[in-house]
Amino acid sequence: MKALKFSEKLELVENYPRPVPAENEALIRVLLAGICNTDLEIIKGYMGFKGILGHEFVGIVEKIHADNQTLLHKRVVGEINCGCKNLDCSFCNQGLQRHCPDRKVLGIYGKDGCMAEYITLPLENLLAVPDSVKDEEACFCEPLAAGFEILEQVDIRTSDDVLILGDGKLGILIDFALQNTMANITHAGKHKHKLAIVAEKGVRTVMPEELDNRQYDFVVEATGTSGGLKTALQHVKPRGAIVLKSTTAAGKEIDLTPLVINEITLVGSRCGRFGPALKALEKGVNIRPLISAVVPFEKALDAFAKAGAKGTLKVLLDLR
Amino acid sequence: MKALKFSEKLELVENYPRPVPAENEALIRVLLAGICNTDLEIIKGYMGFKGILGHEFVGIVEKIHADNQTLLHKRVVGEINCGCKNLDCSFCNQGLQRHCPDRKVLGIYGKDGCMAEYITLPLENLLAVPDSVKDEEACFCEPLAAGFEILEQVDIRTSDDVLILGDGKLGILIDFALQNTMANITHAGKHKHKLAIVAEKGVRTVMPEELDNRQYDFVVEATGTSGGLKTALQHVKPRGAIVLKSTTAAGKEIDLTPLVINEITLVGSRCGRFGPALKALEKGVNIRPLISAVVPFEKALDAFAKAGAKGTLKVLLDLR
Repeated sequence: MKALKFSEKLELVENYPRPVPAENEALIRVLLAGICNTDLEIIKGYMGFKGILGHEFVGIVEKIHADNQTLLHKRVVGEINCGCKNLDCSFCNQGLQRHCPDRKVLGIYGKDGCMAEYITLPLENLLAVPDSVKDEEACFCEPLAAGFEILEQVDIRTSDDVLILGDGKLGILIDFALQNTMANITHAGKHKHKLAIVAEKGVRTVMPEELDNRQYDFVVEATGTSGGLKTALQHVKPRGAIVLKSTTAAGKEIDLTPLVINEITLVGSRCGRFGPALKALEKGVNIRPLISAVVPFEKALDAFAKAGAKGTLKVLLDLR
Repeated sequence: MKALKFSEKLELVENYPRPVPAENEALIRVLLAGICNTDLEIIKGYMGFKGILGHEFVGIVEKIHADNQTLLHKRVVGEINCGCKNLDCSFCNQGLQRHCPDRKVLGIYGKDGCMAEYITLPLENLLAVPDSVKDEEACFCEPLAAGFEILEQVDIRTSDDVLILGDGKLGILIDFALQNTMANITHAGKHKHKLAIVAEKGVRTVMPEELDNRQYDFVVEATGTSGGLKTALQHVKPRGAIVLKSTTAAGKEIDLTPLVINEITLVGSRCGRFGPALKALEKGVNIRPLISAVVPFEKALDAFAKAGAKGTLKVLLDLR
């Protein structure tokens, strides 16, 4: 099958072996795959991953290696973490496969990803996509779930003041998720055309230099830049919380003294469950303004170049 | 009055002016004052504080500038943060004077401390000490409250595994507070004679080098050393929480990437309300093994030298 492989370099190959579903796994034909910043990091060396890239997709189930054939021929999205499923794994037992110490992660760690004609995933990772949700929208399930993950971790009340730092894809999807709290959101970013996507939903938007001394109950750091956490610490209220979404911001060393003095809570936040994101897509959250391009799979290398360019939001690879 | 003053150096002075209680304040004659690590930091320059040191005390109310004279001649302890009490201060309005941006802090910021014959404090800061609680015990109210503060910030369940790092005064008082959760506590420290204080309460104690790969739901960093947070990150479970009690540990710069990947929550924690601590002292928590010495106030400089020496726990200054 055709596949976008990364080892020394990124390469579109024609004859990669088609994966074979193990027991309780499905074989899925990929329709669309999204390029995530994590993919751009991986080709710079992040996670030391070698193999087929990609973890954002929508596809059709073509074969199921299990008695339960309910999802056969259905359009699906799939959670990307595959836990060990051992009976004594406290994470898998709580539905937290995404923290199983022995997990494999689609296109990121130990498992070939979705930038290929076919993938396999455990049946339990799959969710059927409602007919009303288009392929392009379904493909946003994974990054939107990362936004909803915040609501699983902290309790944001309607009266809270929330600051989102960063207007990249992740920042905007986080904004979409947090709008459901009805809290007072301020979104700071450097790109007027990106901020416009949330401004039209009634969110207050500011450029970084317009941030005043106002303090926030919650600050979400999603700039993916090393200065982000420092900015967050400047703008969070005493006893408030910072949600740290990017490993890039975390990678910079920082003095946490104000965190102790002001009793700030710092919450690391990563992938989320797909359910809430799929529900939001079904309810009509409009992710279309985030799509910068849908590129035929044959031009995947061009698509990566575009995805990495300044000002680009989401680039999707089309395998239909 | 006699007072222990810090400006360029630490000095016992004889003729410091006795403070005068403002409206709704009490004049308190100090019986005992405790030397805290914060005091030792202040004389090295922390907070830039100049004036009378000390924020741990028990005393007798000698005068009240208010109609309500209930506490007159009573033995009291006192919360050390004095908020602005403005009607529009969201912190003071929530009983969080300890986070009021315009607060003064006894012996730490903007207000003379308790290493003197007399202090003043707002009436609302004072709590009457039950007769069954001895002076020496009451003097531990402030640092023990810092231990109980953790229980106001995180929900520790009986089934949780908790690791406390550091066997100084704060670490041991935190242990006393957390024992009330009935969780499974492991206490790591470098001093067998200090760990013995908690071991006799049934707490599992280990030397730092004995810490294995076991992972904990909660790790409390109370070593007051720069490597503490790094150790905490190594021993906390994915989705677990680290409570950071010391600004010294926070002052070291650190890479927080594992915090994002494992969705760790880092909780800055400082002073607490006195109520729970006083209740615990009344119920008989035994802090006596933490007292290294009770020194007459005239020998305050010697007492500071002793407090700073290796292996010392609490040194109290006796003004009775």
